[in-house]
Amino acid sequence: MQAPDPTRFILIGTSHPGNVGAAARAMKVMGFSDLVLVAPRDPQVLQRDEAVAMASGATDVLAAARVVATLPEALEGVAYLCATAMTPRDFGPPTQAPRALFASLAPSQERVAFLFGSERFGMANEDVYRCHACLSIPTRADYGSLNLSQAVQLIAYDWREALGGFDVEPRTTEATLADAASVQGLLAHWQETMVEIGFLDPAAPKKLLPRLNQLINRARLSREEVDILRGLARFVGKPRG
Amino acid sequence: MQAPDPTRFILIGTSHPGNVGAAARAMKVMGFSDLVLVAPRDPQVLQRDEAVAMASGATDVLAAARVVATLPEALEGVAYLCATAMTPRDFGPPTQAPRALFASLAPSQERVAFLFGSERFGMANEDVYRCHACLSIPTRADYGSLNLSQAVQLIAYDWREALGGFDVEPRTTEATLADAASVQGLLAHWQETMVEIGFLDPAAPKKLLPRLNQLINRARLSREEVDILRGLARFVGKPRG
Repeated sequence: MQAPDPTRFILIGTSHPGNVGAAARAMKVMGFSDLVLVAPRDPQVLQRDEAVAMASGATDVLAAARVVATLPEALEGVAYLCATAMTPRDFGPPTQAPRALFASLAPSQERVAFLFGSERFGMANEDVYRCHACLSIPTRADYGSLNLSQAVQLIAYDWREALGGFDVEPRTTEATLADAASVQGLLAHWQETMVEIGFLDPAAPKKLLPRLNQLINRARLSREEVDILRGLARFVGKPRG
Repeated sequence: MQAPDPTRFILIGTSHPGNVGAAARAMKVMGFSDLVLVAPRDPQVLQRDEAVAMASGATDVLAAARVVATLPEALEGVAYLCATAMTPRDFGPPTQAPRALFASLAPSQERVAFLFGSERFGMANEDVYRCHACLSIPTRADYGSLNLSQAVQLIAYDWREALGGFDVEPRTTEATLADAASVQGLLAHWQETMVEIGFLDPAAPKKLLPRLNQLINRARLSREEVDILRGLARFVGKPRG
Protein backbone atom coordinates (compact mmCIF):
# COMPACT_ATOMS: atom_id res chain seq x y z
CA MET A 1 0.00 0.00 0.00
CA GLN A 2 1.30 3.39 -1.05
CA ALA A 3 0.86 6.21 1.48
CA PRO A 4 -1.74 8.76 0.31
CA ASP A 5 0.88 11.46 -0.24
CA PRO A 6 4.24 9.98 -1.13
CA THR A 7 5.85 13.33 -1.86
CA ARG A 8 7.58 15.62 0.62
CA PHE A 9 8.48 19.29 0.26
CA ILE A 10 11.44 20.41 2.37
CA LEU A 11 12.23 24.09 2.87
CA ILE A 12 15.70 24.72 4.25
CA GLY A 13 16.58 27.89 6.12
CA THR A 14 13.52 29.80 4.91
CA SER A 15 13.33 33.47 5.97
CA HIS A 16 9.88 34.79 5.07
CA PRO A 17 6.72 33.52 6.76
CA GLY A 18 4.70 34.62 3.72
CA ASN A 19 6.70 32.27 1.53
CA VAL A 20 6.04 29.34 3.86
CA GLY A 21 2.31 30.03 3.75
CA ALA A 22 2.33 30.49 -0.02
CA ALA A 23 4.30 27.24 -0.40
CA ALA A 24 1.67 25.39 1.66
CA ARG A 25 -1.07 26.72 -0.60
CA ALA A 26 0.93 25.91 -3.73
CA MET A 27 1.38 22.33 -2.51
CA LYS A 28 -2.24 21.86 -1.54
CA VAL A 29 -3.77 22.95 -4.85
CA MET A 30 -1.64 20.25 -6.43
CA GLY A 31 -2.73 17.65 -3.88
CA PHE A 32 0.41 17.54 -1.71
CA SER A 33 0.50 17.98 2.06
CA ASP A 34 3.81 16.76 3.51
CA LEU A 35 5.82 19.88 4.41
CA VAL A 36 8.99 19.93 6.51
CA LEU A 37 10.97 23.02 7.46
CA VAL A 38 14.64 22.61 8.24
CA ALA A 39 16.08 25.31 10.50
CA PRO A 40 13.78 28.16 9.46
CA ARG A 41 15.10 31.57 10.46
CA ASP A 42 12.09 31.98 12.76
CA PRO A 43 11.31 28.73 14.62
CA GLN A 44 7.71 29.94 15.13
CA VAL A 45 7.25 30.66 11.42
CA LEU A 46 4.32 28.25 11.06
CA GLN A 47 2.28 30.27 13.55
CA ARG A 48 3.00 33.74 12.13
CA ASP A 49 0.07 35.77 10.82
CA GLU A 50 1.69 36.29 7.43
CA ALA A 51 2.23 32.54 6.95
CA VAL A 52 -1.38 31.82 7.86
CA ALA A 53 -2.67 34.63 5.61
CA MET A 54 -0.67 33.47 2.59
CA ALA A 55 -1.70 29.85 3.17
CA SER A 56 -5.29 30.92 2.55
CA GLY A 57 -7.29 27.66 2.71
CA ALA A 58 -4.15 25.54 3.21
CA THR A 59 -3.74 26.13 6.93
CA ASP A 60 -4.15 22.37 7.43
CA VAL A 61 -0.85 21.88 5.57
CA LEU A 62 0.82 24.45 7.84
CA ALA A 63 -0.68 22.85 10.93
CA ALA A 64 0.66 19.42 9.96
CA ALA A 65 4.11 20.73 8.94
CA ARG A 66 7.17 19.75 11.00
CA VAL A 67 10.15 21.86 11.96
CA VAL A 68 13.48 20.05 12.34
CA ALA A 69 17.01 21.24 13.00
CA THR A 70 18.98 19.43 10.30
CA LEU A 71 18.30 18.03 6.85
CA PRO A 72 18.95 14.36 7.74
CA GLU A 73 16.05 14.59 10.23
CA ALA A 74 13.74 15.49 7.37
CA LEU A 75 14.54 12.48 5.21
CA GLU A 76 12.94 9.41 6.78
CA GLY A 77 10.69 7.53 4.40
CA VAL A 78 11.78 9.31 1.23
CA ALA A 79 14.12 7.57 -1.19
CA TYR A 80 14.86 10.04 -3.95
CA LEU A 81 16.02 13.58 -3.24
CA CYS A 82 15.69 16.40 -5.75
CA ALA A 83 17.70 19.54 -5.07
CA THR A 84 16.60 22.83 -6.58
CA ALA A 85 19.62 24.98 -7.16
CA MET A 86 20.64 27.92 -9.28
CA THR A 87 24.32 28.39 -8.69
CA PRO A 88 26.70 26.36 -10.82
CA ARG A 89 28.77 23.91 -8.80
CA ASP A 90 31.92 22.03 -9.66
CA PHE A 91 30.44 18.75 -8.62
CA GLY A 92 27.12 17.16 -7.68
CA PRO A 93 24.10 15.31 -9.03
CA PRO A 94 23.15 15.72 -12.68
CA THR A 95 21.03 18.78 -13.53
CA GLN A 96 17.75 18.27 -15.33
CA ALA A 97 14.64 20.22 -16.20
CA PRO A 98 11.72 19.08 -14.02
CA ARG A 99 9.62 17.72 -16.87
CA ALA A 100 12.50 15.76 -18.34
CA LEU A 101 13.36 14.11 -15.02
CA PHE A 102 9.77 13.58 -13.90
CA ALA A 103 8.88 11.64 -17.05
CA SER A 104 11.19 8.86 -15.88
CA LEU A 105 10.87 9.39 -12.12
CA ALA A 106 7.07 9.35 -11.79
CA PRO A 107 6.56 5.79 -13.08
CA SER A 108 9.15 4.49 -10.58
CA GLN A 109 6.70 5.14 -7.71
CA GLU A 110 9.58 6.11 -5.44
CA ARG A 111 8.92 8.35 -2.48
CA VAL A 112 10.38 11.65 -3.59
CA ALA A 113 11.40 14.78 -1.69
CA PHE A 114 11.91 18.21 -3.21
CA LEU A 115 14.41 20.43 -1.40
CA PHE A 116 14.39 24.21 -1.56
CA GLY A 117 17.11 26.45 -0.16
CA SER A 118 16.80 29.82 1.51
CA GLU A 119 15.51 32.92 -0.28
CA ARG A 120 18.87 34.65 -0.18
CA PHE A 121 21.43 31.91 -0.55
CA GLY A 122 19.68 28.94 -2.17
CA MET A 123 20.88 25.48 -1.22
CA ALA A 124 24.19 24.86 0.52
CA ASN A 125 26.61 22.64 -1.39
CA GLU A 126 26.62 20.05 1.39
CA ASP A 127 22.86 19.65 1.00
CA VAL A 128 23.01 19.43 -2.78
CA TYR A 129 25.56 16.61 -2.42
CA ARG A 130 22.97 14.56 -0.54
CA CYS A 131 20.61 14.57 -3.51
CA HIS A 132 20.01 12.23 -6.43
CA ALA A 133 19.18 14.93 -8.94
CA CYS A 134 19.37 18.68 -9.27
CA LEU A 135 16.30 20.33 -10.75
CA SER A 136 16.63 23.48 -12.76
CA ILE A 137 13.48 25.30 -13.88
CA PRO A 138 14.13 26.56 -17.40
CA THR A 139 14.14 30.37 -17.22
CA ARG A 140 15.72 33.35 -18.92
CA ALA A 141 19.47 32.97 -18.72
CA ASP A 142 19.94 36.54 -17.46
CA TYR A 143 17.03 36.60 -15.00
CA GLY A 144 16.22 33.23 -13.55
CA SER A 145 15.40 34.10 -9.99
CA LEU A 146 12.00 32.73 -9.04
CA ASN A 147 10.34 33.59 -5.77
CA LEU A 148 10.58 30.56 -3.45
CA SER A 149 6.86 29.85 -3.39
CA GLN A 150 6.69 30.21 -7.18
CA ALA A 151 9.38 27.56 -7.50
CA VAL A 152 7.41 25.31 -5.16
CA GLN A 153 4.30 25.92 -7.29
CA LEU A 154 6.01 25.02 -10.57
CA ILE A 155 7.63 21.88 -9.19
CA ALA A 156 4.37 20.78 -7.51
CA TYR A 157 2.50 21.33 -10.77
CA ASP A 158 4.98 19.49 -12.98
CA TRP A 159 5.20 16.62 -10.52
CA ARG A 160 1.42 16.31 -10.23
CA GLU A 161 1.11 16.34 -14.01
CA ALA A 162 3.79 13.65 -14.25
CA LEU A 163 1.89 11.56 -11.68
CA GLY A 164 -1.15 11.64 -13.94
CA GLY A 165 -2.58 15.07 -13.22
CA PHE A 166 -5.95 16.28 -12.14
CA ASP A 167 -8.91 16.56 -14.46
CA VAL A 168 -10.01 19.87 -15.83
CA GLU A 169 -13.68 20.50 -15.16
CA PRO A 170 -15.46 21.98 -18.16
CA ARG A 171 -16.61 25.46 -17.18
CA THR A 172 -19.38 25.59 -19.76
CA THR A 173 -21.79 23.06 -21.21
CA GLU A 174 -20.84 22.06 -24.70
CA ALA A 175 -23.17 23.37 -27.38
CA THR A 176 -24.61 21.07 -30.03
CA LEU A 177 -23.17 21.96 -33.42
CA ALA A 178 -25.57 22.91 -36.17
CA ASP A 179 -25.54 20.50 -39.10
CA ALA A 180 -24.27 21.66 -42.47
CA ALA A 181 -27.77 21.63 -43.96
CA SER A 182 -29.04 24.19 -41.44
CA VAL A 183 -25.94 26.33 -42.04
CA GLN A 184 -26.78 26.36 -45.78
CA GLY A 185 -30.37 27.23 -44.87
CA LEU A 186 -29.11 30.16 -42.80
CA LEU A 187 -26.95 31.40 -45.67
CA ALA A 188 -29.86 31.17 -48.11
CA HIS A 189 -31.98 33.17 -45.67
CA TRP A 190 -29.29 35.85 -45.32
CA GLN A 191 -28.83 35.96 -49.10
CA GLU A 192 -32.54 36.53 -49.62
CA THR A 193 -32.61 39.27 -46.98
CA MET A 194 -29.46 40.97 -48.24
CA VAL A 195 -30.91 41.08 -51.76
CA GLU A 196 -34.20 42.40 -50.36
CA ILE A 197 -32.56 45.28 -48.48
CA GLY A 198 -30.28 46.07 -51.40
CA PHE A 199 -26.96 45.09 -49.79
CA LEU A 200 -26.36 42.26 -52.27
CA ASP A 201 -26.75 42.77 -55.99
CA PRO A 202 -27.78 39.39 -57.46
CA ALA A 203 -26.40 40.52 -60.84
CA ALA A 204 -22.92 41.08 -59.30
CA PRO A 205 -22.76 38.95 -56.15
CA LYS A 206 -18.95 38.86 -56.13
CA LYS A 207 -17.77 36.42 -53.46
CA LEU A 208 -19.95 37.70 -50.62
CA LEU A 209 -21.81 34.43 -49.99
CA PRO A 210 -18.77 32.14 -50.18
CA ARG A 211 -16.92 34.51 -47.86
CA LEU A 212 -19.68 34.42 -45.28
CA ASN A 213 -19.86 30.64 -45.71
CA GLN A 214 -16.17 30.35 -44.89
CA LEU A 215 -16.45 32.68 -41.88
CA ILE A 216 -19.39 30.64 -40.58
CA ASN A 217 -17.59 27.35 -41.17
CA ARG A 218 -14.62 28.53 -39.13
CA ALA A 219 -16.90 29.65 -36.31
CA ARG A 220 -18.57 26.19 -36.08
CA LEU A 221 -22.08 27.47 -35.26
CA SER A 222 -24.30 25.86 -32.67
CA ARG A 223 -27.99 25.22 -33.38
CA GLU A 224 -28.88 28.10 -31.10
CA GLU A 225 -26.57 30.45 -33.00
CA VAL A 226 -28.17 29.47 -36.32
CA ASP A 227 -31.51 30.41 -34.75
CA ILE A 228 -30.14 33.77 -33.57
CA LEU A 229 -28.74 34.63 -37.00
CA ARG A 230 -31.96 33.57 -38.77
CA GLY A 231 -33.91 35.69 -36.29
CA LEU A 232 -31.69 38.64 -37.17
CA ALA A 233 -32.25 38.11 -40.92
CA ARG A 234 -36.02 37.86 -40.37
CA PHE A 235 -35.99 41.10 -38.38
CA VAL A 236 -33.85 43.02 -40.87
CA GLY A 237 -36.08 41.83 -43.72
CA LYS A 238 -39.24 43.16 -42.05
CA PRO A 239 -40.77 46.35 -43.40
CA ARG A 240 -39.82 49.11 -40.94
CA GLY A 241 -42.59 50.93 -39.06
CA MET B 1 8.79 40.60 -38.33
CA GLN B 2 7.40 39.33 -35.06
CA ALA B 3 7.62 41.72 -32.10
CA PRO B 4 10.14 40.55 -29.51
CA ASP B 5 7.43 39.74 -26.96
CA PRO B 6 4.19 38.77 -28.66
CA THR B 7 2.46 37.80 -25.40
CA ARG B 8 0.50 40.09 -23.09
CA PHE B 9 -0.54 39.53 -19.50
CA ILE B 10 -3.64 41.45 -18.45
CA LEU B 11 -4.62 41.74 -14.78
CA ILE B 12 -8.19 42.94 -14.27
CA GLY B 13 -9.32 44.62 -11.06
CA THR B 14 -6.30 43.46 -9.07
CA SER B 15 -6.33 44.36 -5.34
CA HIS B 16 -2.91 43.56 -3.90
CA PRO B 17 0.23 45.45 -4.95
CA GLY B 18 2.32 42.45 -3.86
CA ASN B 19 0.55 40.29 -6.43
CA VAL B 20 1.24 42.77 -9.21
CA GLY B 21 4.93 42.80 -8.33
CA ALA B 22 5.07 39.02 -8.06
CA ALA B 23 3.28 38.71 -11.40
CA ALA B 24 5.89 40.95 -13.03
CA ARG B 25 8.69 38.77 -11.66
CA ALA B 26 6.86 35.59 -12.71
CA MET B 27 6.53 36.94 -16.25
CA LYS B 28 10.12 38.10 -16.49
CA VAL B 29 11.76 34.83 -15.47
CA MET B 30 9.84 33.26 -18.35
CA GLY B 31 10.91 35.98 -20.77
CA PHE B 32 7.69 38.03 -20.95
CA SER B 33 7.40 41.75 -20.35
CA ASP B 34 4.08 43.11 -21.67
CA LEU B 35 1.89 43.77 -18.61
CA VAL B 36 -1.38 45.73 -18.63
CA LEU B 37 -3.54 46.43 -15.59
CA VAL B 38 -7.22 47.08 -16.15
CA ALA B 39 -8.90 49.15 -13.42
CA PRO B 40 -6.68 48.06 -10.52
CA ARG B 41 -8.20 48.86 -7.13
CA ASP B 42 -5.32 51.25 -6.48
CA PRO B 43 -4.49 53.29 -9.62
CA GLN B 44 -0.98 53.92 -8.20
CA VAL B 45 -0.39 50.20 -7.61
CA LEU B 46 2.66 50.09 -9.90
CA GLN B 47 4.48 52.58 -7.68
CA ARG B 48 3.67 50.98 -4.32
CA ASP B 49 6.55 49.69 -2.19
CA GLU B 50 5.07 46.22 -1.92
CA ALA B 51 4.73 45.89 -5.69
CA VAL B 52 8.33 46.99 -6.20
CA ALA B 53 9.58 44.68 -3.42
CA MET B 54 7.80 41.63 -4.80
CA ALA B 55 8.96 42.42 -8.34
CA SER B 56 12.54 41.93 -7.14
CA GLY B 57 14.67 42.29 -10.28
CA ALA B 58 11.60 42.77 -12.51
CA THR B 59 11.00 46.44 -11.79
CA ASP B 60 11.56 47.13 -15.50
CA VAL B 61 8.39 45.15 -16.24
CA LEU B 62 6.49 47.22 -13.66
CA ALA B 63 7.92 50.46 -15.05
CA ALA B 64 6.78 49.58 -18.58
CA ALA B 65 3.34 48.34 -17.49
CA ARG B 66 0.24 50.29 -18.51
CA VAL B 67 -2.89 51.03 -16.52
CA VAL B 68 -6.15 51.34 -18.47
CA ALA B 69 -9.76 51.77 -17.43
CA THR B 70 -11.50 49.07 -19.46
CA LEU B 71 -10.60 45.72 -20.96
CA PRO B 72 -11.10 46.74 -24.62
CA GLU B 73 -8.36 49.35 -24.14
CA ALA B 74 -5.95 46.55 -23.24
CA LEU B 75 -6.50 44.49 -26.38
CA GLU B 76 -4.84 46.28 -29.29
CA GLY B 77 -2.39 44.11 -31.16
CA VAL B 78 -3.41 40.80 -29.57
CA ALA B 79 -5.54 38.37 -31.54
CA TYR B 80 -6.26 35.45 -29.22
CA LEU B 81 -7.61 35.95 -25.70
CA CYS B 82 -7.29 33.32 -22.99
CA ALA B 83 -9.48 33.77 -19.94
CA THR B 84 -8.46 32.16 -16.68
CA ALA B 85 -11.56 31.35 -14.71
CA MET B 86 -12.61 29.05 -11.93
CA THR B 87 -16.36 29.43 -11.62
CA PRO B 88 -18.52 27.30 -13.88
CA ARG B 89 -20.60 29.33 -16.31
CA ASP B 90 -23.61 28.44 -18.40
CA PHE B 91 -21.99 29.71 -21.54
CA GLY B 92 -18.64 30.86 -22.89
CA PRO B 93 -15.47 29.73 -24.64
CA PRO B 94 -14.38 26.10 -24.34
CA THR B 95 -12.38 25.21 -21.22
CA GLN B 96 -8.97 23.58 -21.67
CA ALA B 97 -5.93 22.77 -19.59
CA PRO B 98 -3.06 25.14 -20.51
CA ARG B 99 -0.76 22.44 -21.87
CA ALA B 100 -3.48 20.94 -24.04
CA LEU B 101 -4.42 24.29 -25.58
CA PHE B 102 -0.86 25.59 -25.88
CA ALA B 103 0.28 22.58 -27.91
CA SER B 104 -1.95 23.77 -30.75
CA LEU B 105 -1.84 27.52 -30.03
CA ALA B 106 1.93 28.01 -29.88
CA PRO B 107 2.67 26.91 -33.46
CA SER B 108 0.02 29.36 -34.76
CA GLN B 109 2.29 32.29 -33.87
CA GLU B 110 -0.73 34.40 -32.95
CA ARG B 111 -0.33 37.28 -30.54
CA VAL B 112 -1.88 35.94 -27.38
CA ALA B 113 -3.14 37.65 -24.23
CA PHE B 114 -3.74 35.95 -20.90
CA LEU B 115 -6.44 37.55 -18.75
CA PHE B 116 -6.57 37.21 -14.96
CA GLY B 117 -9.46 38.38 -12.80
CA SER B 118 -9.40 39.90 -9.35
CA GLU B 119 -8.18 38.04 -6.28
CA ARG B 120 -11.63 37.91 -4.70
CA PHE B 121 -14.04 37.54 -7.59
CA GLY B 122 -12.07 36.15 -10.52
CA MET B 123 -13.13 37.20 -14.00
CA ALA B 124 -16.50 38.81 -14.71
CA ASN B 125 -18.70 36.89 -17.13
CA GLU B 126 -18.73 39.79 -19.59
CA ASP B 127 -14.94 39.60 -19.82
CA VAL B 128 -14.90 35.82 -20.22
CA TYR B 129 -17.33 36.19 -23.13
CA ARG B 130 -14.73 38.30 -24.97
CA CYS B 131 -12.23 35.42 -24.96
CA HIS B 132 -11.38 32.66 -27.40
CA ALA B 133 -10.57 30.04 -24.78
CA CYS B 134 -10.92 29.55 -21.06
CA LEU B 135 -7.85 28.12 -19.34
CA SER B 136 -8.23 25.96 -16.29
CA ILE B 137 -5.13 24.90 -14.38
CA PRO B 138 -5.64 21.28 -13.30
CA THR B 139 -5.85 21.29 -9.50
CA ARG B 140 -7.50 19.37 -6.68
CA ALA B 141 -11.23 19.42 -7.22
CA ASP B 142 -11.94 20.52 -3.65
CA TYR B 143 -9.14 23.09 -3.32
CA GLY B 144 -8.26 24.72 -6.60
CA SER B 145 -7.64 28.29 -5.51
CA LEU B 146 -4.23 29.46 -6.68
CA ASN B 147 -2.78 32.76 -5.60
CA LEU B 148 -2.99 35.20 -8.53
CA SER B 149 0.77 35.46 -9.05
CA GLN B 150 1.09 31.67 -8.85
CA ALA B 151 -1.46 31.35 -11.64
CA VAL B 152 0.52 33.88 -13.68
CA GLN B 153 3.68 31.87 -13.01
CA LEU B 154 2.20 28.56 -14.14
CA ILE B 155 0.65 30.02 -17.30
CA ALA B 156 3.87 31.90 -18.15
CA TYR B 157 5.87 28.69 -17.64
CA ASP B 158 3.59 26.46 -19.72
CA TRP B 159 3.39 29.05 -22.48
CA ARG B 160 7.16 29.53 -22.58
CA GLU B 161 7.66 25.77 -22.69
CA ALA B 162 5.12 25.53 -25.52
CA LEU B 163 6.99 28.27 -27.40
CA GLY B 164 10.12 26.16 -27.28
CA GLY B 165 11.36 26.77 -23.76
CA PHE B 166 14.61 27.97 -22.33
CA ASP B 167 17.65 25.78 -22.01
CA VAL B 168 18.67 24.31 -18.71
CA GLU B 169 22.26 25.13 -17.91
CA PRO B 170 24.12 22.16 -16.48
CA ARG B 171 25.03 23.03 -12.90
CA THR B 172 27.95 20.59 -12.76
CA THR B 173 30.50 19.38 -15.24
CA GLU B 174 29.78 15.91 -16.48
CA ALA B 175 32.16 13.26 -15.18
CA THR B 176 33.82 10.77 -17.53
CA LEU B 177 32.51 7.27 -16.85
CA ALA B 178 35.00 4.60 -15.94
CA ASP B 179 35.21 1.79 -18.45
CA ALA B 180 34.07 -1.70 -17.49
CA ALA B 181 37.64 -3.03 -17.42
CA SER B 182 38.67 -0.56 -14.72
CA VAL B 183 35.53 -1.42 -12.73
CA GLN B 184 36.55 -5.09 -12.82
CA GLY B 185 40.06 -4.06 -11.77
CA LEU B 186 38.58 -2.18 -8.81
CA LEU B 187 36.50 -5.19 -7.78
CA ALA B 188 39.56 -7.49 -7.99
CA HIS B 189 41.46 -5.03 -5.80
CA TRP B 190 38.63 -4.93 -3.23
CA GLN B 191 38.36 -8.72 -3.30
CA GLU B 192 42.07 -9.09 -2.59
CA THR B 193 41.91 -6.57 0.25
CA MET B 194 38.76 -8.05 1.79
CA VAL B 195 40.38 -11.49 1.81
CA GLU B 196 43.54 -10.01 3.31
CA ILE B 197 41.69 -8.33 6.21
CA GLY B 198 39.51 -11.41 6.76
CA PHE B 199 36.18 -9.90 5.71
CA LEU B 200 35.83 -12.29 2.76
CA ASP B 201 36.38 -16.04 3.14
CA PRO B 202 37.64 -17.30 -0.25
CA ALA B 203 36.37 -20.78 0.67
CA ALA B 204 32.80 -19.43 1.13
CA PRO B 205 32.55 -16.22 -0.85
CA LYS B 206 28.74 -16.37 -1.09
CA LYS B 207 27.56 -13.66 -3.47
CA LEU B 208 29.54 -10.78 -1.99
CA LEU B 209 31.47 -9.90 -5.14
CA PRO B 210 28.54 -10.15 -7.58
CA ARG B 211 26.47 -8.02 -5.18
CA LEU B 212 29.12 -5.31 -5.05
CA ASN B 213 29.47 -5.56 -8.83
CA GLN B 214 25.75 -4.90 -9.26
CA LEU B 215 25.80 -1.99 -6.79
CA ILE B 216 28.73 -0.46 -8.65
CA ASN B 217 27.11 -1.00 -12.02
CA ARG B 218 23.98 0.85 -10.90
CA ALA B 219 26.07 3.73 -9.59
CA ARG B 220 27.89 4.18 -12.95
CA LEU B 221 31.29 5.13 -11.51
CA SER B 222 33.44 7.89 -12.89
CA ARG B 223 37.16 7.38 -13.39
CA GLU B 224 37.81 9.59 -10.39
CA GLU B 225 35.53 7.46 -8.22
CA VAL B 226 37.34 4.28 -9.27
CA ASP B 227 40.56 5.96 -8.13
CA ILE B 228 38.98 6.94 -4.78
CA LEU B 229 37.72 3.41 -4.12
CA ARG B 230 41.07 1.84 -5.11
CA GLY B 231 42.80 4.31 -2.82
CA LEU B 232 40.51 3.20 0.00
CA ALA B 233 41.29 -0.49 -0.68
CA ARG B 234 45.00 0.26 -0.73
CA PHE B 235 44.78 2.10 2.57
CA VAL B 236 42.67 -0.57 4.29
CA GLY B 237 45.10 -3.24 3.10
CA LYS B 238 48.09 -1.45 4.63
CA PRO B 239 49.54 -2.82 7.85
CA ARG B 240 48.30 -0.48 10.60
CA GLY B 241 50.89 1.50 12.57
